[in-house]
Amino acid sequence: MAYLGTPIVIDKLLYQPKNSLVNQSINARELEEPLNGDGFGIGWYVPEVYAEPVTFVSVSPAWSNRNLRNLAPKIRAHCFVAHVRAASVGEVSESNCHPFQYKNLLMMHNGGVENFARIKRKLREPLSDELYNWIKGQTDSEHLFAYFLNYLFDHHKTISPEAVIDAFEHTFMTLKKLMAENGIEEAAYLNMVVTNGLFTVGTRYNTSPGEPPLTLYHSEGSRYVVEDGISQMVAPEDDDHAVLVVSEKLTDDASWTLIPENHFVVVDPTLTVRIIPIKA
Amino acid sequence: MAYLGTPIVIDKLLYQPKNSLVNQSINARELEEPLNGDGFGIGWYVPEVYAEPVTFVSVSPAWSNRNLRNLAPKIRAHCFVAHVRAASVGEVSESNCHPFQYKNLLMMHNGGVENFARIKRKLREPLSDELYNWIKGQTDSEHLFAYFLNYLFDHHKTISPEAVIDAFEHTFMTLKKLMAENGIEEAAYLNMVVTNGLFTVGTRYNTSPGEPPLTLYHSEGSRYVVEDGISQMVAPEDDDHAVLVVSEKLTDDASWTLIPENHFVVVDPTLTVRIIPIKA
Amino acid sequence: MAYLGTPIVIDKLLYQPKNSLVNQSINARELEEPLNGDGFGIGWYVPEVYAEPVTFVSVSPAWSNRNLRNLAPKIRAHCFVAHVRAASVGEVSESNCHPFQYKNLLMMHNGGVENFARIKRKLREPLSDELYNWIKGQTDSEHLFAYFLNYLFDHHKTISPEAVIDAFEHTFMTLKKLMAENGIEEAAYLNMVVTNGLFTVGTRYNTSPGEPPLTLYHSEGSRYVVEDGISQMVAPEDDDHAVLVVSEKLTDDASWTLIPENHFVVVDPTLTVRIIPIKA
Amino acid sequence: MAYLGTPIVIDKLLYQPKNSLVNQSINARELEEPLNGDGFGIGWYVPEVYAEPVTFVSVSPAWSNRNLRNLAPKIRAHCFVAHVRAASVGEVSESNCHPFQYKNLLMMHNGGVENFARIKRKLREPLSDELYNWIKGQTDSEHLFAYFLNYLFDHHKTISPEAVIDAFEHTFMTLKKLMAENGIEEAAYLNMVVTNGLFTVGTRYNTSPGEPPLTLYHSEGSRYVVEDGISQMVAPEDDDHAVLVVSEKLTDDASWTLIPENHFVVVDPTLTVRIIPIKA
Repeated sequence: MAYLGTPIVIDKLLYQPKNSLVNQSINARELEEPLNGDGFGIGWYVPEVYAEPVTFVSVSPAWSNRNLRNLAPKIRAHCFVAHVRAASVGEVSESNCHPFQYKNLLMMHNGGVENFARIKRKLREPLSDELYNWIKGQTDSEHLFAYFLNYLFDHHKTISPEAVIDAFEHTFMTLKKLMAENGIEEAAYLNMVVTNGLFTVGTRYNTSPGEPPLTLYHSEGSRYVVEDGISQMVAPEDDDHAVLVVSEKLTDDASWTLIPENHFVVVDPTLTVRIIPIKA
Repeated sequence: MAYLGTPIVIDKLLYQPKNSLVNQSINARELEEPLNGDGFGIGWYVPEVYAEPVTFVSVSPAWSNRNLRNLAPKIRAHCFVAHVRAASVGEVSESNCHPFQYKNLLMMHNGGVENFARIKRKLREPLSDELYNWIKGQTDSEHLFAYFLNYLFDHHKTISPEAVIDAFEHTFMTLKKLMAENGIEEAAYLNMVVTNGLFTVGTRYNTSPGEPPLTLYHSEGSRYVVEDGISQMVAPEDDDHAVLVVSEKLTDDASWTLIPENHFVVVDPTLTVRIIPIKA
Repeated sequence: MAYLGTPIVIDKLLYQPKNSLVNQSINARELEEPLNGDGFGIGWYVPEVYAEPVTFVSVSPAWSNRNLRNLAPKIRAHCFVAHVRAASVGEVSESNCHPFQYKNLLMMHNGGVENFARIKRKLREPLSDELYNWIKGQTDSEHLFAYFLNYLFDHHKTISPEAVIDAFEHTFMTLKKLMAENGIEEAAYLNMVVTNGLFTVGTRYNTSPGEPPLTLYHSEGSRYVVEDGISQMVAPEDDDHAVLVVSEKLTDDASWTLIPENHFVVVDPTLTVRIIPIKA
Repeated sequence: MAYLGTPIVIDKLLYQPKNSLVNQSINARELEEPLNGDGFGIGWYVPEVYAEPVTFVSVSPAWSNRNLRNLAPKIRAHCFVAHVRAASVGEVSESNCHPFQYKNLLMMHNGGVENFARIKRKLREPLSDELYNWIKGQTDSEHLFAYFLNYLFDHHKTISPEAVIDAFEHTFMTLKKLMAENGIEEAAYLNMVVTNGLFTVGTRYNTSPGEPPLTLYHSEGSRYVVEDGISQMVAPEDDDHAVLVVSEKLTDDASWTLIPENHFVVVDPTLTVRIIPIKA
């Protein structure tokens, strides 16, 4: 989940909606293996205090974390991301929890690359010493983010949505090439989101076009409200505006737009939403 | 789950069966709320080294616990108990994890007492100072065990199955009385098991006979084997013998006997199984 | 440590001073047993978002906690408390970590009551059902706070510094009476602090006047600054004002005033500091 | 600490000696920075049940770990290792805790390589895919062990003390070469121990002969006893025999022999101790 817009108390996103992320951590309705109990993480930006975002991660399940429950009603942020994890690659450790943070960027990944061990070392080879040693865990997600960052900072002086799009496309193309060279035929699922607190870029991507990618939705409005357990975006009527990008719908209403397969969803600093094909 | 009999490598009970306790911790098939991710605990006896059993508990889910996975194939015990917890009363903390240990006794509880807070202080009042201060957590389970122990050691010099039966019946009667006096009308579910490493007494009990109690089964044979993912008790053919008492069947075969409502299941030191009505 | 005044980034208190609380957690210079590695907790008020403060606790040592290190430079608060724990009574669990929170009040305790188990049940007896069941852990600190709260809300409609002083004095008198009745002759050390985000009351108290109480200092100024590793209060020169109450000096300079034995230190909402004898 | 010999209850090594490892975790007397609170690990062999040893690790300090305290009096083993960690390189995570286990081998390391990040990727390059992906954490220790294992299994069909010696010498030579090539001039401290449950090889090694290496001792006798808080090896008088290799003396008596600088200590399956110069 990635929220950008009018500052919101994160409790409204984490706990109050019927299909909130914390509830998803117990029972994700649109996944085959419903449990996401292998840790969680949240990140939010506090531009009035510090340039880099706060990240808070834990290997204990989101639903029973005392600190998360205590924090959630008391944090208000304009940019907030949250992730629950079902371990696929890598142990259950804080180092493997999303979001991954590099300077002022946050990244989260839903999906995975089968047989990732076969290409891990090749993905690390081009990394700068700094990014090589920045990697703390074992996940495909963190390694792909390191590769993405290496390309991003090598090729772009300004970190704009277009720069992020370019780095994603390059990363996906490299991944496909490495997979082909190393006999990985299973589809890689790459629903990712990167934000710097000002804009957000999400991907709904699958290396094998025949296979259905994991879901990714967005919703926009003036504000996100929860009344009587029903949460929804309020239609724009004033200066407030907010956009939410999520792997699963938080509510059953019609306010969610499915991102098309192999497309980016870009939320610009003006909160304009663009849907752009992924060239990879 | 409580095992007594021919020494067994606990991995065979914890991980290998299709519906093993670790798998139950993800998806308990016979419960309404299927998740038991709020910690776990195991206990086993090592009479050749120490009079008191080993207990190992954790607030992290059983399925991702590195230490548990490493230990399980390497521990062989003749008496082994295991529990996964879905927090009802009490925080997720090690102090609230089952099994509870007092000297050489272990206790586990499946079920709960609604509105337990109303009677907690009354249940504590008759306790000896030692047992009053022995309580570390907030659960109904631990408080009931403390009350049980207080009565057991006050009234019995020898800890036999009969003494345990007497203490259980007294505890249940006191609980029903306190519930009635404090306006608790909801059924209390009290599937409990107590063992000293030599014998085991389990209860399948519900304070409101109309309501169905939680399930409790037993299975017996000469040995417990797992072959090609299928686990079962082998019919007695030699000196080996083993009895398993479980809240949920570990396999789909016919070897499981449901304990009748409001009955004890007693596994004697000779591994004889007795089914006895609970007078309470 | 309890800070009240001009909003401060908590990193300046937790990590930057030479003898900061995190460094104290490794080596507390004025204690006989220097290690405080049995968990920590922080609390801060966010009046613009929520009436109750945030608390964040952990059983892992403060010095290695990834979340604490990430949070500290990004939280700015006008009222902030922090505590590191060396377990005396009670297990190492989140339930035993300070600060203890009840509604909008936070409490921390440095010290302890020897043989507390002898009087625990007597201290619980007068508690309302709500406060009786509110207790989650086993510490003398939490039980004394529950007793304090029970008296405070029974006898005071408005929670002022004077009401807190009255409740502290009553609590200490009751404790001394219970200790005498139960043969506890060792001195009880009761350096405690209670805050509601608007004012703070600290105690430096010892039940046996002959024995030296644990240290408690305060420092005040316009702002707290850290330059080149040297931290100090800046002398008042403008509207800013801040008061710090600590168990150990954060720096070696002369800006720390030792609270006299058996006295309160009261920091009023206007940030005026009063030193008042404890009548108990 | 590495013990080999007559089966011993590990409590006698972990908790009972005055300067036991758990006490060392609070205050290691012979180190500049005395605290080892960043996790611990133990390993022991159970040849009657499983070919690979048990490892139990935790990121919480050894002194407050409830499971460790419960386990210690109830485990008896003929080969036991234990380690407490003060984080130098790598986060505080289970993946960074010693002992590291690969199949039936355990390895622990006391010391470190300054600026290890400069050579990490070069040390990984020659690794087999299996060992490359086997690495879970970020420590110099785990990477050096992976390099050691890669060489060991490439060059030796039988894992004997001589094979282990050869792999250590090759690893140290490679490390010195990489350090020189990458401008690392600080001494690397490499007190390591490897065991397979039958024999143990320890190193007391420093890449800069001028600098004093960290201490490493051994002690041998028929049995290890603790009486009235005093622990010692009993002189051989019967068939029992035991050897202990430790970084710090467990007691103040004269039974400890300091391993000379840049030497191996080899404990053979017959429990014979050999001191051999390290050629590297």
